[in-house]
Amino acid sequence: MSKKVGFVGVGRMGANMARRLAECGYKVTAVFDVNRKGAAELAAEIGAEACTKLARVTALSDVVITVVTDDKAQLAIFTNKKDNLLQGAKGRAFINCATISPKTHVQVEKLAKKAGAASLEACMASSINQARAGTLYLMCGGEKAVFDKLKPLLIKLSDEGKLLRYIGQAGQAAQVKALVNMVMNINTAGLAEGLGLGAALKLDLKTLMEVFSQTGANSRVLATDGEDMVNRDHACFFSGAHAAKDSGIALKLAKEQKLSLPLAAASLAQYTKMVKLGFGDLDKSGIAELTFKGRGKKK
Amino acid sequence: MSKKVGFVGVGRMGANMARRLAECGYKVTAVFDVNRKGAAELAAEIGAEACTKLARVTALSDVVITVVTDDKAQLAIFTNKKDNLLQGAKGRAFINCATISPKTHVQVEKLAKKAGAASLEACMASSINQARAGTLYLMCGGEKAVFDKLKPLLIKLSDEGKLLRYIGQAGQAAQVKALVNMVMNINTAGLAEGLGLGAALKLDLKTLMEVFSQTGANSRVLATDGEDMVNRDHACFFSGAHAAKDSGIALKLAKEQKLSLPLAAASLAQYTKMVKLGFGDLDKSGIAELTFKGRGKKK
Repeated sequence: MSKKVGFVGVGRMGANMARRLAECGYKVTAVFDVNRKGAAELAAEIGAEACTKLARVTALSDVVITVVTDDKAQLAIFTNKKDNLLQGAKGRAFINCATISPKTHVQVEKLAKKAGAASLEACMASSINQARAGTLYLMCGGEKAVFDKLKPLLIKLSDEGKLLRYIGQAGQAAQVKALVNMVMNINTAGLAEGLGLGAALKLDLKTLMEVFSQTGANSRVLATDGEDMVNRDHACFFSGAHAAKDSGIALKLAKEQKLSLPLAAASLAQYTKMVKLGFGDLDKSGIAELTFKGRGKKK
Repeated sequence: MSKKVGFVGVGRMGANMARRLAECGYKVTAVFDVNRKGAAELAAEIGAEACTKLARVTALSDVVITVVTDDKAQLAIFTNKKDNLLQGAKGRAFINCATISPKTHVQVEKLAKKAGAASLEACMASSINQARAGTLYLMCGGEKAVFDKLKPLLIKLSDEGKLLRYIGQAGQAAQVKALVNMVMNINTAGLAEGLGLGAALKLDLKTLMEVFSQTGANSRVLATDGEDMVNRDHACFFSGAHAAKDSGIALKLAKEQKLSLPLAAASLAQYTKMVKLGFGDLDKSGIAELTFKGRGKKK
């Protein structure tokens, strides 16, 4: 509990994880974000320092949690020549929560080791509300000893550890995460087709969803996204652009394995189209804009 | 309860429905199947007459339940010049349970009316075990009065009515059924891609399925087909060939509505490929033969 925690990347996910840990009695000492205003506001809220240097985050923390947007950002915070997290990082631990490619997790672990620091990937398969409540589904990859050492903190983010999983070596959690989102995106795009066709046939969509829920068509995304698709309520929990990114990561893995995955490819094409039409910032349920008649124009 | 019931089409589904109704005290008086041997065996088992003429089934029954393979067979039993179910059908009721196109249900209802008989579509979204146990999910289409009249019997097939749904006019239940199976087929083909890629990446598939089940990747088919895909156990409950047929029905409806459904199209292509490779008689979970490395050859 005496651990000092720093955060790099305090968007909707990172900020809520910081709030949660502060609430649990952790000392959140440092926050950093390219959005300086957001970082300053959060820092004021939870009594942390809003750092303008990454090395300062490391200096103020025992554990640094990173929640950045993509591979490029993840590599940059660990390798930027002028200022990076590994300066003075000996004995520190990094927990990397962004959805990035498995290879980048492996690379970051290597760099951290070289600097005398520990690194763990902790992929999240949940959203903003769960970050705030400390009920994230967390899939971890890295050395088992590092995982065990960080467990007390991870538990506070994952419903007292009920949703905490050790998957295997660095990169494997990101692989699992990519597969989760690939399958989720397929199911979501498929559901949008079922409901879109149902609407075109003038079927009662409430009944249709009830039937789906009782049969082989049932899925988690039916519960989370079905009504939103019907009601055209696409307030963003997990954006179409993110869906496209994650399916892209999975398809790259498939290509390396020389596997052809036509459903994943079709769903990537749909999410890419969604982004191109200007709907990339809508929730993934906004894929229904492409399958309901008369939709697909900017509201 | 005094109703005499006939069955046309006593394959795995029809035979088990007949057994169930006989068990519930209904008098199953007549069975008919192009497979004469199967019909004779069932007739002996439940004390019915194995008919060689369709008109004889009608003569012996108040209600005739038809469970045939496709549109062609469904139309044939009602329109064959020499011998069909509508000969002497005045006052009889037909319950049509096959997965056929919505249009055929409408056509059969029209023909039955002309002959002074009632007709109801009762689409099943369950499988063999549920037929035997009387716990089928039954979606009905037709005149509400006909549905109400047949309800006491339908209840005995649908878990005391808990799984019985009146959807709307003739054809609409078949539309819903086609949508259910279209979405189910997408989810199944998508799951096979997720598990196939997981296997190629040498991830622990038990852990992967557990993660799927806890996240946005969860689905009914994960529970019913996931392990079978991993274990390559494709004993048939719902065949790949049937999956291809049903997705085809849904895509035809989509085409009529001028809707493009790329995920449904990709899954139809996969199931069609499965059939072409000679796996059409495997369970739909056999779609994993196309996505796991080293599979896809006849065992």
